[in-house]
Parts: sequence; structure tokens; C-alpha cells
Amino acid sequence: MLKFPKYLDNIKPYLPGKPVEELQRELGLREVVKLASNENPFGCSLFVKKAIERSTTNINRYPDGGAYYLRKSLSEFLAVEPEQIIFGNGSNEIIDMIARVFLSDGREALFFEGSFVVYRLVSQIAGGKYREVPLECDFSRNLNRMLEEISDETSVIFIDNPCNPTGFANKKEEFHDFVRKLPDNVLLVIDEAYFEYAKGHGVPDGINYIRRINPDIPEKNIIVLRTFSKAYGLAGLRIGYGIAKKEIIQILEKVRQPFNTNYLAQIAAVEALKDQDFVNFSVEENEKGKELFYEEFEKRKIFYLPTYGNFIMFQVESSQQIYEELLKKGVIVRPAFGFDNFLRVSIGREEENIKFFKALDSLGYSCK
Amino acid sequence: MLKFPKYLDNIKPYLPGKPVEELQRELGLREVVKLASNENPFGCSLFVKKAIERSTTNINRYPDGGAYYLRKSLSEFLAVEPEQIIFGNGSNEIIDMIARVFLSDGREALFFEGSFVVYRLVSQIAGGKYREVPLECDFSRNLNRMLEEISDETSVIFIDNPCNPTGFANKKEEFHDFVRKLPDNVLLVIDEAYFEYAKGHGVPDGINYIRRINPDIPEKNIIVLRTFSKAYGLAGLRIGYGIAKKEIIQILEKVRQPFNTNYLAQIAAVEALKDQDFVNFSVEENEKGKELFYEEFEKRKIFYLPTYGNFIMFQVESSQQIYEELLKKGVIVRPAFGFDNFLRVSIGREEENIKFFKALDSLGYSCK
Repeated sequence: MLKFPKYLDNIKPYLPGKPVEELQRELGLREVVKLASNENPFGCSLFVKKAIERSTTNINRYPDGGAYYLRKSLSEFLAVEPEQIIFGNGSNEIIDMIARVFLSDGREALFFEGSFVVYRLVSQIAGGKYREVPLECDFSRNLNRMLEEISDETSVIFIDNPCNPTGFANKKEEFHDFVRKLPDNVLLVIDEAYFEYAKGHGVPDGINYIRRINPDIPEKNIIVLRTFSKAYGLAGLRIGYGIAKKEIIQILEKVRQPFNTNYLAQIAAVEALKDQDFVNFSVEENEKGKELFYEEFEKRKIFYLPTYGNFIMFQVESSQQIYEELLKKGVIVRPAFGFDNFLRVSIGREEENIKFFKALDSLGYSCK
Repeated sequence: MLKFPKYLDNIKPYLPGKPVEELQRELGLREVVKLASNENPFGCSLFVKKAIERSTTNINRYPDGGAYYLRKSLSEFLAVEPEQIIFGNGSNEIIDMIARVFLSDGREALFFEGSFVVYRLVSQIAGGKYREVPLECDFSRNLNRMLEEISDETSVIFIDNPCNPTGFANKKEEFHDFVRKLPDNVLLVIDEAYFEYAKGHGVPDGINYIRRINPDIPEKNIIVLRTFSKAYGLAGLRIGYGIAKKEIIQILEKVRQPFNTNYLAQIAAVEALKDQDFVNFSVEENEKGKELFYEEFEKRKIFYLPTYGNFIMFQVESSQQIYEELLKKGVIVRPAFGFDNFLRVSIGREEENIKFFKALDSLGYSCK
């Protein structure tokens, strides 16, 4: 018999579900609205599409393991040094690298209840431990409480800011204060997957801690994660990145596979960065969509949480049941992981958002 | 200070080199022939290019974590069950998953000297041990010697067949015999990255052990790795797979990230499978190229090893020096990792192969 570590016993292998196209066929639906994965409903930049079409002649060649051109573009765009960047097959892969390096000796990760589910998963897979810090009654996150929970065992703190699925974000001043008090033997991971949507709403730009913009905040061990999967609309291509001081990047590079990011993703990300108009348009449309959702939820007296992302969590009587009934109407949302009786809906294009509310109304669902 | 496991101390982070285009510019070369990474010199199938061009409208959507359509196509093509397949971001990622599951408890991997360098790397990164089994004097591999080296600590045996960089392959009968004697507590990884090139030359089809074609060979713990990066010409997209009995696939699925293979790679692989004419053409051209290399090496009395892959290892006086001199002539080859004074050249298109020999001749290099 093959032996493997005990800590893998409790991890369930991923059970592949059917893709949307198959569901659609089985349910006999003419059209499906997918508001389930916080994707950019406007696709991606035309620059990207054209560049991919131009680049198919080179897909027989291995990608550039150092992502030279993308590294150059991104370091200029973000005003950080090229050596302060690590690329991942989605920022998910960087989360996994962090766990492999800093948790596989059995130490622990801290994160808030209801954080991005991958933090728990990678901690388990790496053979590490994790503890969840409770939320406040209004689903907000108290960073002082996080500080109090730090133990001798704590190696990594994961904070998704904004947080998926609640949409909550901690603001600049409280975050600065938190960073000031952070012990030096802990790595703080600020996961800013939804940064572009949150920007300008008083939410900190974590990279400023790496850039050392604020002389009042001492240098700490911080890595900021960003992605091209959300506002840039490249989820299918898998490309994300981490920004940290060089010493931290060098440690993580030890566990990176050289060809972890594919050739077309590197090309696409370079082009996507050039088209900030597309990003700005997507963010503006998301703001409008957010207003529509807020209004429509309020009309129906449905409890929802204000959001800093491109998704909204709202309360229902039975999340599994409403999820399934919406699915039959051709609207895919998702039960909010970690929150009983809450669903998460991604903000789509206007017609998709309207279709969502029509489907909800057709269920005869009302607040109880 | 941040702490991480001791076993990571000796791993050097990947140092990103410059891409070919940058070298070309710096050296002022009009044209560069890249015979360095065992890629398919004929690109990829036209089916693939067209499918990618058709699919750019969906890259804002996450890939299908279960790779439903690719799994279906591949299971039909290979005559295995869909649940007997795991997909990786290149077969490299599956090698890494194997190490994470079976070596992170500190047990050991066995592989032959001069095997694919990634086996050593993933064993180290996982916190496992490894031992290398010596080659015979003629660079061949004695599978009985491998059996003798198995210890109580041995958890995984990696065999790349054919082997990169020597090009050597063990044949059917000796391999069958090896499999019969394999202990049940060891996972045998048969890495068949170059399978399409080796097929029909008496080299075993490892998947037949999973298909249980031969009733005389009892069921063992085996996973066969294949890739779309070589004969299928999709190296840039990162897609490979493993075939094993369901129980082994289920264990590996525990450490797989759901979105590890990207959307365009899944689409491309489905199309690539349909175009076996392209694969056959590539393999036939490789056979011709092989003959050309053999002849030309013999004319020059250069010692080379016959190959079952799309690359040839040959002896030079100083591999680093000749490598650099060829580079300046616009021909990129690679020092054969693990073999002093050997270079590895990938078999290219006819004109590329000729350019390689012209460059070699222009160095005034002769056998000594």
C-alpha cells in the first residue's frame, strides 16, 4: 500500500462538476447568466484578444520562465523593482507557495472567519495549522483582535482586503496601525484580488507598504497579492502576482516551477496593463451595478452587505434551495462559503443584473 | 525574522535569464535557431491556432476545474476511464504533486543519474530525500540495479523513458520484468514526455500497465506521465497529464489547485488530439532529422548517443565554451545537465539542423 502523510487524510479531492454548457443543455436553457465567479462581465481588453491572435505561432515554445517583458511592464506600472515581483499561475498559486514555504514546518496561519477558502486549503495541504479569527456581529473585521490572536506558532497572516464573499474591507488608518504593530517574525499576506474595484474608497494600497511611501510605518514582512483574473478579465489564462521586498521574493522563488505561467498569459497581461481605459470602464460599470443591486435589494427588503468588490453577499432563507432554483431559471450564483443562508452574486452587465432580479422575483421569494 | 524549513536552504531560487529576443538584439543576430528545449520545431496543429482565435471571447471566465471536455476526449483517445486522468500545468506540475504527497514525510525518491532535473528539485522542495542510481558505462540504465537499490525508505521511483538528456530508453521485455518485481509500497512514475517519438521502437507503452492489457503482469502502483508540450507542440500553453488507477488519481487530486490548467490550454489540447496527422508528420520529420544528425556527427567523428527522443546528446571538449560560441553564431543548444562535456541539441527543421552543423564547423571544432 502507498503511504502518505496523515494531514492529507481529511482533504477531499476536487470533484469535477459539469461545465456551464453541459448544465445548459441538460436543463434545456436557451441562455445562462453566470454571476458565480466574480469574473469581469465585459470580457477583456481588445488589445489582449488581438495580441493572442498574433501569438499563436509561438505556442510550441516554452514560456519565458522569468517573464521578462511582463516583469518590465509591471515594475514600471507599479513603480516597484523587477526583483520585487513573483508571478503565479493565478495568485492562487502564490498563496500555495507561501504555505509551502512558511507553514510546512507545522506552524500556523491566521485568517478571519469567512476568508477566501483557499487559505484553509493550502494550509492543510502544506501540513500546517490554521486558526480563524471571529468576525464582529456585523461581519466586519477587527484588526486589533487579529493582533491579539497572534501566538508563538503564528507564521503567516492572510487578509483578503476586500474580503470575498462578504465584500468588507478594512480602511487605511486602521490598516496602517495594524501594520505598525505587526511582529517581525510573521509574514502578512494582503490579498488584493479586488484592488481595482476598491481603489479610491479609503481602502489601503498594500504596495505602498513595500514602496515605503509612509516613513511613519516601519518596514515589515509583507507580500501583496494582485491578479489579472478580476478587473483585467483574464481569469481563464491564470496569471497573478505578488509584490514584496526582494528577500521574501527570493525565498518564494525556491518553490516556484520555472514554467508556471504560460506564454499567452504573459503576453495578455502585458497588453491588459496598457489598456487602463478598459479597467476604468469595468470599474465604473461595476459601481453602477452595485447601486442597482443595493436599490433592488432594498426595495425587496432583502438583507445584503455593502461591498468593495464586484460581488454582493445577501441573505436568503435557504441558500442551497434558492441557489438551485435560480440555476433552473438560468441564473448561476453561489452559496457564500462559510455563511449559512447567504448567497453571493457577482455584479454583471446591466441586463444580467436585471435578469437576476427577475429570476429571484419569479421564485416568489420574499424576505421573512 | 521569517523562519522556513532547513531543507529549503540549499535550493537556489530560479534566476530569470533573458529571453531569446533580448539575446538576439544584444548579440546583433539577424536570426536565431533555438534547438535548446526539445520543442516541436513545426509549431502546432492549425486546428489549435484556429480554436484559440475563436476562443478569446471567453478568457474572462475561469477555466473548467474538471477539464470536462478534454477529459472526455483524452479518455476516449487513450481508452482509459475519465477518472484515471489527472491534468497538470505541464506534466512538471504533476511531478511536483507526486513529491508533495509521497515525499513530504521525509521518505526517498529513487531515479537514475542524469534523469530529468525536475525529479531532484521537487524532492528537495517537498522536504523528501532522493538517491541516484548509477548508469552503466555506456550510459544505459539497468533496471535490475534500480530494483536492488529500493530500500524501506523508498516511496517513489521516477523513470523517464525515454530519458532526457541521454535519449536512452529501456525496452518492453526488461520493463515488464521490472514492473513484475516492483514492491507494492512504491509508486512507479513512468515519465513518457517523449512517448510519441519513441513509439514503435520497442519501447513500452506505460499506459498498458494501467489498462491491464497483459494478464501476466500483476497490478502495481504506477502513474504514467504524458505531455502536450513535445510532439503536440503546445509547450507555451502548459498542459500535461497523468494516467493511473483511480485510487492514485484521487490521492493526487487532494493537492491539485482547481484552476491549475488554463482555459486556452484545455481547448488547444482537445484540438491537438484531433490532428494526429500533425503529430505523425512531426514524428516522421524527427526521424529524418535524427538520421541527418547521426550521419553528420559520424562524418565529424563526434561521439553521440542514439536517441529515442527529439534531441541528441553529444560530446565536446568543453560544453560551456562550445555552448557560448554556438550562441554567438545564433544557435542555441544546452549543456547536458549532469554530463560534463556533453551538449544536448534538439532536432529541428532540416534547415535548422544544417545551420547547427555549419555553426559547429565554423568554430573549427573537431574531435580530440
